[in-house]
Amino acid sequence: MKARWQYLQSRLAHIKEKKLFELFVAVVIIASALLIGAKTYDGIDRFSPVLYWLDISITAFFLLEISIRLAAEKRLLDFFKSGWNLFDFVIVTASLIPIDESELVLVARLLRILRVLRLISLIPELRILLSALIKSIPRMGYVALVMFIIFYIYGAIGSFLFADVDEKLWGNIAIAMLTLFQVATFESWATAVLYPTMEHHPYSWVYFLSFIFFNAFIFLNMMIGIVLDVMQKESQAIQLETGTGEAAEIHHTYEQIVALSDQINRIEAKLDRFNR
Amino acid sequence: MKARWQYLQSRLAHIKEKKLFELFVAVVIIASALLIGAKTYDGIDRFSPVLYWLDISITAFFLLEISIRLAAEKRLLDFFKSGWNLFDFVIVTASLIPIDESELVLVARLLRILRVLRLISLIPELRILLSALIKSIPRMGYVALVMFIIFYIYGAIGSFLFADVDEKLWGNIAIAMLTLFQVATFESWATAVLYPTMEHHPYSWVYFLSFIFFNAFIFLNMMIGIVLDVMQKESQAIQLETGTGEAAEIHHTYEQIVALSDQINRIEAKLDRFNR
Amino acid sequence: MKARWQYLQSRLAHIKEKKLFELFVAVVIIASALLIGAKTYDGIDRFSPVLYWLDISITAFFLLEISIRLAAEKRLLDFFKSGWNLFDFVIVTASLIPIDESELVLVARLLRILRVLRLISLIPELRILLSALIKSIPRMGYVALVMFIIFYIYGAIGSFLFADVDEKLWGNIAIAMLTLFQVATFESWATAVLYPTMEHHPYSWVYFLSFIFFNAFIFLNMMIGIVLDVMQKESQAIQLETGTGEAAEIHHTYEQIVALSDQINRIEAKLDRFNR
Amino acid sequence: MKARWQYLQSRLAHIKEKKLFELFVAVVIIASALLIGAKTYDGIDRFSPVLYWLDISITAFFLLEISIRLAAEKRLLDFFKSGWNLFDFVIVTASLIPIDESELVLVARLLRILRVLRLISLIPELRILLSALIKSIPRMGYVALVMFIIFYIYGAIGSFLFADVDEKLWGNIAIAMLTLFQVATFESWATAVLYPTMEHHPYSWVYFLSFIFFNAFIFLNMMIGIVLDVMQKESQAIQLETGTGEAAEIHHTYEQIVALSDQINRIEAKLDRFNR
Repeated sequence: MKARWQYLQSRLAHIKEKKLFELFVAVVIIASALLIGAKTYDGIDRFSPVLYWLDISITAFFLLEISIRLAAEKRLLDFFKSGWNLFDFVIVTASLIPIDESELVLVARLLRILRVLRLISLIPELRILLSALIKSIPRMGYVALVMFIIFYIYGAIGSFLFADVDEKLWGNIAIAMLTLFQVATFESWATAVLYPTMEHHPYSWVYFLSFIFFNAFIFLNMMIGIVLDVMQKESQAIQLETGTGEAAEIHHTYEQIVALSDQINRIEAKLDRFNR
Repeated sequence: MKARWQYLQSRLAHIKEKKLFELFVAVVIIASALLIGAKTYDGIDRFSPVLYWLDISITAFFLLEISIRLAAEKRLLDFFKSGWNLFDFVIVTASLIPIDESELVLVARLLRILRVLRLISLIPELRILLSALIKSIPRMGYVALVMFIIFYIYGAIGSFLFADVDEKLWGNIAIAMLTLFQVATFESWATAVLYPTMEHHPYSWVYFLSFIFFNAFIFLNMMIGIVLDVMQKESQAIQLETGTGEAAEIHHTYEQIVALSDQINRIEAKLDRFNR
Repeated sequence: MKARWQYLQSRLAHIKEKKLFELFVAVVIIASALLIGAKTYDGIDRFSPVLYWLDISITAFFLLEISIRLAAEKRLLDFFKSGWNLFDFVIVTASLIPIDESELVLVARLLRILRVLRLISLIPELRILLSALIKSIPRMGYVALVMFIIFYIYGAIGSFLFADVDEKLWGNIAIAMLTLFQVATFESWATAVLYPTMEHHPYSWVYFLSFIFFNAFIFLNMMIGIVLDVMQKESQAIQLETGTGEAAEIHHTYEQIVALSDQINRIEAKLDRFNR
Repeated sequence: MKARWQYLQSRLAHIKEKKLFELFVAVVIIASALLIGAKTYDGIDRFSPVLYWLDISITAFFLLEISIRLAAEKRLLDFFKSGWNLFDFVIVTASLIPIDESELVLVARLLRILRVLRLISLIPELRILLSALIKSIPRMGYVALVMFIIFYIYGAIGSFLFADVDEKLWGNIAIAMLTLFQVATFESWATAVLYPTMEHHPYSWVYFLSFIFFNAFIFLNMMIGIVLDVMQKESQAIQLETGTGEAAEIHHTYEQIVALSDQINRIEAKLDRFNR
């Protein structure tokens, strides 16, 4: 019994590694995405039985695929050690939960849409891009915090000063922060926000211009800095691993110099012994 | 007979390499561009016989020029090994096809407009710029794919949630993605898209702000990263080739160290022999 | 008496360094921020006694906290040597000044809002970010000066040429510079500024396009250059300090080479002595 | 006679180099700028005699200043070898030309406004910034050429396809290129250009999106690349000159290695001689 299971397992591992299998999974993911897209069109309702069966077969295929990958693993828990596997597992199992209540239909649809993200876990290049992105999040979080503090302070000042000018733009701190976000994206910030405010508070341009300068200055500085930093380290790490490029040459030069130094110490000692 | 052909060929190769010839080609390309521009003006119709003959003579000149360059090549197929030659050949021959049907007039005009691109294949500096750009396309493609997946997911969610708010902005997934592109460029995103939507779905700002953050974050990160990466490698490669600059010095230092290490090994061995 | 004071001082220094103490300070700062935010909502007036007492207790806590940190210092003046301490001290003491006159209520509120900035002085990562930012200010100042000169020149030209077209946009040099800032952010610059002006001065697009080009060109060039420069130096300094990374390896290689050179000089001298 | 002239010249050179003199020149430049700014205000006419005399005294001062700097030069032509001196000279002498014809008043005003630019030639830091900028112009020119070709091609296509939709936006190639510039800055590109066009040509989004992608892609790639390149070389050159920083260390390491290699060759030769 156990032998047959091991045989089956090795067969499944074999299937899992086939390029054709991966390609087929990709095709099904894209089909699933197109299905979701198709559902947003108006005239689609007359095909609803077809869509229903397509939906079920896609769900079934994903279930089958994840089962194969699970079964192919020697130890079941190893499967969940990879973040991408866990991600796939959650996406697939979540869409199995039967949802009939109309309120949760949106949640079910959202889960089906998120299946498209499985394309990222399937294509290695995209996985690398995503990993690099995720690594930049912690430091990005601090930048976001500084930005939030600035938005909060300007939001509070704005809603104290301008609440009487336009309740819709400066009613309370939350609305004011949304308005400030609009200003930060430069969307109608002058024609729809600055000029109407300046009619009541002629010096309000100080508030807006200082906000824009702070914002642009901090945002640009920090973002570019972080991005550069992360990318530079990434590229150096790759060069070191592959043993090519400038960083690798510098590293090897350094190691060689250290070794040389030891050797010359030895030579000098020998010469000294010889001299005596 | 063959001797005469070879003589002619060497003469043609001579002509082809002359600066004056290149300059004249550039002038004709610019004339061709101006002709196309002139045709977009209203009052131009009364000059149509002139334009017609100018058009024919430009086409004839381009045909002559490509013939000279073809004939100057020792082996005809070598000409097509260069992508830029192929590009020129397609542009020139395509505009020879006689098009009388009114529907295809647009295609014929487009081909004539594309002649302007021959300026790029003529100026070496522009060719280098273009080559660097083309090299960044493959990796750019993956970024575009990630962006497309995000647009697709948000487009699907948007058309599920907001289709009842504004059919023109969120009617189906295609329209929704176009609206999201408008949001991504910050064009009237708050006044024309966010605020009308928030009147029906007060919490829709979560959808828009998260989209903008994802978008800006991923786009900026990846684009800058890729651009930097490509440019850095480019500049290092140039330094290594020309043997100047930091990268070249690092490389030579490394080579020298390796050679030194061998030599000191030799010295140590000699000393050891001597000691014995 | 003095012994008791020293004992108390060491106890206070102990408290000051506790993580729990810092966490509690952070919580109070956030509470203070939320309190300010809450005051911008309309219905909040019925809670005004609660808010009043919360305000007083937060002020009292900040006073207590700054006193503990002051007392924990061995020499009182050492406390003010750190810019961040000074910053905290000013923020806290300023909000102690009793302000009853209605005109200064805004100033009092502003001081209370600025308390949120204490979060930055509390979190080490944010302090580092801010320091890097502050370092880039001097050189940024020169860029701002160049930008201001360009705005001033274009503002003067604009108000000479277009004052008769639209008094609201080009009335005097100050208004013209604000309009130019709007143009620089691309907000409605074509539909609301360029096209109306072109109806009276058909060639005014030269003015606007040259301004945008100058602006974008100088701004982008200088900003990116400065940011890169500062960040690069920062990251190299960190690598040198921590003794890891490329810059550190280059530095160590250099030091080793210098040492090696000395040693080989010595070896050669010994060999020479030996040969004689 | 000649001795007195030399004495005067050395005195003038002395004055020219004084910090106070430079400061005073800066103050006059700023006063001249403020004067120009003041003239753009409406109520200023009643001060016109004052302004008139201020104007004349500023012009006189600039004339005096340039004369001092000219006279202080040992050989008169050396003065014009510096581009900045030439720049100052042209600005100052040009505003001496008496202009009474009302048509040329604008030109005279423009020349007076350009005096503000003398601030740049006065402050060394700004001169450095400007030099770096000017160095990036040649390569920037090629990028601008590529951009112009793309604008031209899209402009021609746009005015062929959409001239019947909106004569004001696509009337001829020049108008179309201005519209495309508006699209490139994302100003009302969707609400005012894309959507009205899509009502007549439903597939025109291909035209606009491809234009935006081309544009953003090429512009960003090339600009950032060039800026980085120039800045990087600049910073390396500075490090090499000052003999500090990474680039200098790499350079010295390289030189030391070459010297070491020679020395070890010598040592090996000595050992060989010894062995024989």
